[in-house]
Amino acid sequence: MNKLLIVGTVAFDAIETPFGKTDKILGGAGTYIGLSAAFFNLQSAIVSVVGDDFPQEYLDLLTERNIDISGLEVVKGGKTFFWSGRYHNDLNSRDTLDTQLNVLADFQPKVPENYKNADVVMLGNLHPLVQSGVLDQLESTPKLVVLDTMNFWMDCALPELLDVIKRVDVITINDEEARQLSGEYSLVKAAAKIQEMGPEFVVIKKGEHGALLFHENNVFFAPALPLEEVFDPTGAGDTFAGGFAGFITQSENVSFENMKNAIIYGSNLASFCVEKFGTERMVSLEKEEVMVRLKQFKSLTQFDIEL
Amino acid sequence: MNKLLIVGTVAFDAIETPFGKTDKILGGAGTYIGLSAAFFNLQSAIVSVVGDDFPQEYLDLLTERNIDISGLEVVKGGKTFFWSGRYHNDLNSRDTLDTQLNVLADFQPKVPENYKNADVVMLGNLHPLVQSGVLDQLESTPKLVVLDTMNFWMDCALPELLDVIKRVDVITINDEEARQLSGEYSLVKAAAKIQEMGPEFVVIKKGEHGALLFHENNVFFAPALPLEEVFDPTGAGDTFAGGFAGFITQSENVSFENMKNAIIYGSNLASFCVEKFGTERMVSLEKEEVMVRLKQFKSLTQFDIEL
Repeated sequence: MNKLLIVGTVAFDAIETPFGKTDKILGGAGTYIGLSAAFFNLQSAIVSVVGDDFPQEYLDLLTERNIDISGLEVVKGGKTFFWSGRYHNDLNSRDTLDTQLNVLADFQPKVPENYKNADVVMLGNLHPLVQSGVLDQLESTPKLVVLDTMNFWMDCALPELLDVIKRVDVITINDEEARQLSGEYSLVKAAAKIQEMGPEFVVIKKGEHGALLFHENNVFFAPALPLEEVFDPTGAGDTFAGGFAGFITQSENVSFENMKNAIIYGSNLASFCVEKFGTERMVSLEKEEVMVRLKQFKSLTQFDIEL
Repeated sequence: MNKLLIVGTVAFDAIETPFGKTDKILGGAGTYIGLSAAFFNLQSAIVSVVGDDFPQEYLDLLTERNIDISGLEVVKGGKTFFWSGRYHNDLNSRDTLDTQLNVLADFQPKVPENYKNADVVMLGNLHPLVQSGVLDQLESTPKLVVLDTMNFWMDCALPELLDVIKRVDVITINDEEARQLSGEYSLVKAAAKIQEMGPEFVVIKKGEHGALLFHENNVFFAPALPLEEVFDPTGAGDTFAGGFAGFITQSENVSFENMKNAIIYGSNLASFCVEKFGTERMVSLEKEEVMVRLKQFKSLTQFDIEL
C-alpha cells in the first residue's frame, strides 16, 4: 500500500452556524484530511501536535481508521490549538471569534521514520516554515507534494510561503487567495501566475461553486453537489484536499487526467462533510454512500454531445 | 425546419465596464436571444417594438441571420427602449444609470400569422402581461415554452408573473431571483418550489459560476468556461437562453437528457458573448468557433471514473 504523509492541525473547534452551535469538538485541517483520505486504500500518518487535554477517544477515532499517529506529538501540560468561529447566514463567510495557538506556537514537526519515503505528501494549512520543515525531513522524493495554505500566511509570512510553494507540485487555495497571491482578478490568469511560482498544478476552491484544476493550458472543473441544506462548511476544503490526495495516493497516477478523478473524489467527500457539524458526518460516512454519490456527480456533469 | 418564436426587447444599450464605455449600441434581450439561436438550424422570428430612431443596419443585421422581423413593430415618431448601466470592477454587479421605456411602455405584441404554430417559444424578460399576451395568440401548443424574467417583475407585477409562470415548461432565472421567487436560500429547495408553481424545468443561472438545470429529482450543472478576461457581461443570460432554446428547437427533443446538451450549448454561446462589448462578439462569431469551444467544454467537465 502506498503511503500518504499528512501535516496539519489537530484541534478543538467551536462552531456557530444559523442552525446551531457546538462546544469544543474535534477539528483541525490534519484531522479532516486524515478522515477523508481514509476512504482510500492506503497507509497514512498525521504529523501534528496536541496538548494533554486532547481526549483519548479522539486519538482512538484516528487510529481506528488506520491513521498512524506516531508523529502526533502530545505536549504534557500543553493545551490543544483552539479555533472558534461564527458563520453568517449565507454560510459563505464567517467571523473568527477566538484563536488560541497554544501548543501550535512552538510546533516542530517530526516525520515518523517509515514515512520519510512517503509516496504522497499533503501539507495542510500551517505556517510555511512548518510545511518546509516536513519536506526537509524526507529521504526520497515523493510522487506528489500537495500544499494547502490561506491568506493569513500571505499577509504574515509571504517570503517563507513563496519558498515552500516553489517546492510543491500542487497548490490548493480558494479563489480570493488565488487573487491575492497572484495579483490577478481573472482566475485563469491567477492560475497561470501561480504555476510560474512553482506548482505544476493549481487547484482553486470556490466553495459552493466548485473547484477548478489548472495545468499548463488545461483546465478541469468539478461542481459542488447542489445540496438541500449546507449545515456547517467547516473542514470542507480540508476534506476536499484529503480526498484529492487520498485518491492520488491509492491510484499512483499523477497525470492531469487522473487528477480530474481526484478532484471529483475530493468534491464528493466534501459534499458529505458539510451535512453535519464538524467531523460528525465524516465519522459516520460509509464507503458505499461515497460510491452512490459518485453516480450523482456523473449524472450532474456528464453529457453526450457528439463532436 | 422548426420554428422558434422569440419575444424580447430590441433596444439601445450604453455600457460602462472597467475596460471602457460605449455610446448607444444594439442591445435588448430579443436581440441577444435571436443572434444566439441563429447558430442553429431553425426558423426564427422576433416579436418586439422599436422607434423610428432604430437604424436600418441593425434591422439588416437581424434579417441577414434569417430572423423574421415581421413581428418587430416600428413606431413612427417613437423612440427605442434605452438602457444604460455601469459594471463594478468584479463585473458581477452593476448599477443601472438610466432606463427609458419609450415605445416599450405601450407595447402590444403581435405574433406573425406563420409563427402562431411555433414549435418553441422563448419569452424573453419583459412585462409578464406581454409574455402572456404572446401565449394567448398561439393557435397550437408549442413543444416547449421557455420564460426568462427578473426580480423587477417579482417586485412590481408578481400576480401577473405567477400567472404566466404557470403556463410555461421552462423558467430561466438567476440565483438571487430564484431565492426571491421561492423564499428559499438553498437553490435545491428553491428549484423544487418553483417547479410547484408550474414549470417542469427550472434553470438557475449563476453567471460566472455556471448554470443548474432542475427537473423532478434530477439536476445537471454546466460551468461557465473559465476565461482570461470577461469584457462585458451584458446579454450573457439572454445569449444563454437563446442557445438553449435554439438547440431544443433544432433537435425537437425536450427530454431532460437533451436539455443537458441545450444547457451546454447555451453556456458555450454565452462564453463568447462576454468577450467583447454588447453584441459585437456574437455578430463576428463563426459556427466553427462554437464547435471548437464545445470540445473545451467536454474536456472541462468530462471524467472517466468507472462505477
